[in-house]
Amino acid sequence: MSAADAASRQAPLALLCGGGSLPLAVAGSVAARGRAVVLFPLRGAADPQIAARYPHHWVAVGQLGKFTRLARAAGCRDVVFIGSLLRPPLWQLRFDWTALMALPRVIAAYRGGDDHLLTGVARLFEHQGFRVLGAHEVAPEILMPDGALGGVTPSAGAREDAAFGFAYLRAAGPFDIGQAVVVANKHVLAVEAAEGTDAMLARVAQLRAAGRIAAPAGSGVLVKAPKPAQDRRFDLPSIGPQTVEGVARAGLAGIAVTAGETVIAEPAALIAAADRAKVFVVGLPAGQ
Amino acid sequence: MSAADAASRQAPLALLCGGGSLPLAVAGSVAARGRAVVLFPLRGAADPQIAARYPHHWVAVGQLGKFTRLARAAGCRDVVFIGSLLRPPLWQLRFDWTALMALPRVIAAYRGGDDHLLTGVARLFEHQGFRVLGAHEVAPEILMPDGALGGVTPSAGAREDAAFGFAYLRAAGPFDIGQAVVVANKHVLAVEAAEGTDAMLARVAQLRAAGRIAAPAGSGVLVKAPKPAQDRRFDLPSIGPQTVEGVARAGLAGIAVTAGETVIAEPAALIAAADRAKVFVVGLPAGQ
Repeated sequence: MSAADAASRQAPLALLCGGGSLPLAVAGSVAARGRAVVLFPLRGAADPQIAARYPHHWVAVGQLGKFTRLARAAGCRDVVFIGSLLRPPLWQLRFDWTALMALPRVIAAYRGGDDHLLTGVARLFEHQGFRVLGAHEVAPEILMPDGALGGVTPSAGAREDAAFGFAYLRAAGPFDIGQAVVVANKHVLAVEAAEGTDAMLARVAQLRAAGRIAAPAGSGVLVKAPKPAQDRRFDLPSIGPQTVEGVARAGLAGIAVTAGETVIAEPAALIAAADRAKVFVVGLPAGQ
Repeated sequence: MSAADAASRQAPLALLCGGGSLPLAVAGSVAARGRAVVLFPLRGAADPQIAARYPHHWVAVGQLGKFTRLARAAGCRDVVFIGSLLRPPLWQLRFDWTALMALPRVIAAYRGGDDHLLTGVARLFEHQGFRVLGAHEVAPEILMPDGALGGVTPSAGAREDAAFGFAYLRAAGPFDIGQAVVVANKHVLAVEAAEGTDAMLARVAQLRAAGRIAAPAGSGVLVKAPKPAQDRRFDLPSIGPQTVEGVARAGLAGIAVTAGETVIAEPAALIAAADRAKVFVVGLPAGQ
């Protein structure tokens, strides 16, 4: 670590917060290590409660200048993007002068898929002198470990379904699709694209209720992995208690994710939900 | 063509009819060529109306012996499976003696994906002395031609989206997933698996209504192609007027399918719906 790096890591960390419970988990983890955090909750996305416990400044998507001014004033050099952010409708964007000057680059990024968009946005922050880190770099305990969480472990058949799902996600990687697939007896039941994991699981539950799934209830696996070309600093796949509940409603046996590359939201609640629903949650080595 | 082939082609054709309007279209096309047809509508799947105009015998899934007896009595040697058939729930199956004797082979087929199931079922009919043909072999005019149907033609961007979709379907082929994908500006919005094309299009319409699709209304393409390993004698991808309506509701620009490998249900109604909705329907060379 260089002297500049070390100085950067002692300065307060700027957390640009989207939706969900992850921003608070990351803030808590960073603060517990003795590093100060300054939250920048995004209007329309971040949970108003997350701001209560830390110094914070609400910002709108597009207020790059406001963010830059406030983060610099707080002494921040490192920025982490964390939490969910749906592609905001254009009318919700609030471009300030700094953002307007950077707009051509944002528009170019919008033309590509999400990955390119986020990498393009990260470049704007770097252009303002910040270093953009991944949440896993500042709070590694949010990542899924190797092995099973909770008391249920996957059967040999479930492990085969997981391997089938990982192989599919690798093959689909160049097409920049979703990060998840549902596999039962090596038969793909659902593929996630723009709708997100929860909506995909709801679909599987409907198909099962309609008698359109041959595999018996209690079989089938939700498989999640980052896209091969994904910028790991943002948008790592994540699972939480609601994923477990969706998996249980869909009548699946469990969840398989890549260890060390998947974020766990609310681990204690996730484990409790998994044990209650008799669903396994397993981290497997990436590339398996 | 051998003498046996020629004799077989003069004998009445047995049509095992699932749901939808295709069975009637195929029956009409075969009859118009002067060949007699005998329909075997499947209980719970076939439209009761289709039986009105042709000699017919209702059968349940599993009545292989009944089918064999009646089809032989009618002089049929060739069988075509046509129309949609959801995986029937077990309690709907009516196994007769002939089917029971063949059950071990059916169970083995059930373990694989749909393709293997249908190929396994076809083998049972072949074992009874029938020849199983594809609907396109007896009624080639039901297939999508090369080029656009109706008055709307795809833009250069839509053709690029179609090529992207075909490339994805080829890559996903080994995983035996669905036959369709929705692509807008080279961004995959939805992938079809067990839910079927109509449900996938309804999902895209919902995503669009929720403002979660960046591509403007009137852009994006539904791309359909057979799975690479698919037995072309059954389950060729098909489109019809309701596909066009689903595409229009999803705010897409049009439909791209592989020419000569996609069945068109109700072509006149499809073209009228496409022109009304200003949606293109184009057949492109397979492998493009």
